Amino acid sequence: MVKQERAARTRETLIRSAAEVFDREGFSASSLSQISSLAGVSNGALHFHFENKAALADAVEAEALDRLRVVTGVGPPVGAGRVQFLVDATQGLAGALRRDVVLRAGFALSGGPVRPVRTGLREHWRSWVEEAVERAEEEGELRPEAAAQDVVTAVVAATVGFEVLGVRDAQWLSAAAVGRFWRLLLPTLVPEDALHGVRVEEARPS
Amino acid sequence: MVKQERAARTRETLIRSAAEVFDREGFSASSLSQISSLAGVSNGALHFHFENKAALADAVEAEALDRLRVVTGVGPPVGAGRVQFLVDATQGLAGALRRDVVLRAGFALSGGPVRPVRTGLREHWRSWVEEAVERAEEEGELRPEAAAQDVVTAVVAATVGFEVLGVRDAQWLSAAAVGRFWRLLLPTLVPEDALHGVRVEEARPS
Repeated sequence: MVKQERAARTRETLIRSAAEVFDREGFSASSLSQISSLAGVSNGALHFHFENKAALADAVEAEALDRLRVVTGVGPPVGAGRVQFLVDATQGLAGALRRDVVLRAGFALSGGPVRPVRTGLREHWRSWVEEAVERAEEEGELRPEAAAQDVVTAVVAATVGFEVLGVRDAQWLSAAAVGRFWRLLLPTLVPEDALHGVRVEEARPS
Repeated sequence: MVKQERAARTRETLIRSAAEVFDREGFSASSLSQISSLAGVSNGALHFHFENKAALADAVEAEALDRLRVVTGVGPPVGAGRVQFLVDATQGLAGALRRDVVLRAGFALSGGPVRPVRTGLREHWRSWVEEAVERAEEEGELRPEAAAQDVVTAVVAATVGFEVLGVRDAQWLSAAAVGRFWRLLLPTLVPEDALHGVRVEEARPS
């Protein structure tokens, strides 16, 4: 039992170390010995858990998907609307990408043409945005002129842009940057009398 | 002279072949022999022009920057406003990314954490957007409520999102997708009476 726990902990440490090295060096420049050395384990221990670098990258992506599900799994805020929920989730994602190297490395791995599509982190995010916008529309929160498909396109494109630009400059993942996008977009999204009810900069506590 | 011309042509062919292989396989999975074979030259000829894969990637990025400068170097349309110019340029960039594998591969190479920043393709694009938005503001085309910084953030984030999402699904680089973004954004950008004067879907001829 104790042995199993230790093995699980070593595996977690390796995944986190791999994420840190991938985040800093990029996948192709990262070496297994950098990862095992950062994790404080032997190369043999690394190979016991992961066959090669691609297997480690798969594990980082899978773990990142679990963490993205935490961000998107929070229910809508009590007493607030669906648009607020959507804004909060984009701020929640930006905040999580800022703080969490596993999520950040997972997105970077899954996004580029470097590796085959596996986990579909961005696909998960897009589906979530689609559903959130549909709900907002159903609840009558959107202006009639705001076509749901336009909103999904703009929100998904912009959030992927923040994520990618944030790899090199964390300012793009700040609450201020994401808030600027929403401040501009909201007036076309919701009727004027609902505008002041939506907070754009505060991320929900996470 | 003839020999120099042939060498220049071979170099160009190698850059284009490298872009195609990087675009399809990703940088780290691409091999020099795939590139020389696609270019129809020997490995020796490849090494005469490029020391290694990184040197080829640098050349692809440099060539992509030249091509981006063509997109951003077109002057504002005669008789149309600065906002139209901005919309046209985003459609021009999306169209160029759709058609031009060198530009697409250059952006992918310069964007990820895989390689060090060199050419700054995205930096060039961001500076261009900043200047275009400033001009639109100076010309009085923007609504007073639309803060220039908000507009730059939204346009840069969304266009980088289109570029990155377009690597795996070219639909994101379609005139329709980019047009959906603008259709949503324009009402907060320009006064109502100017709205119908802006075309969102047609790319300028290029």
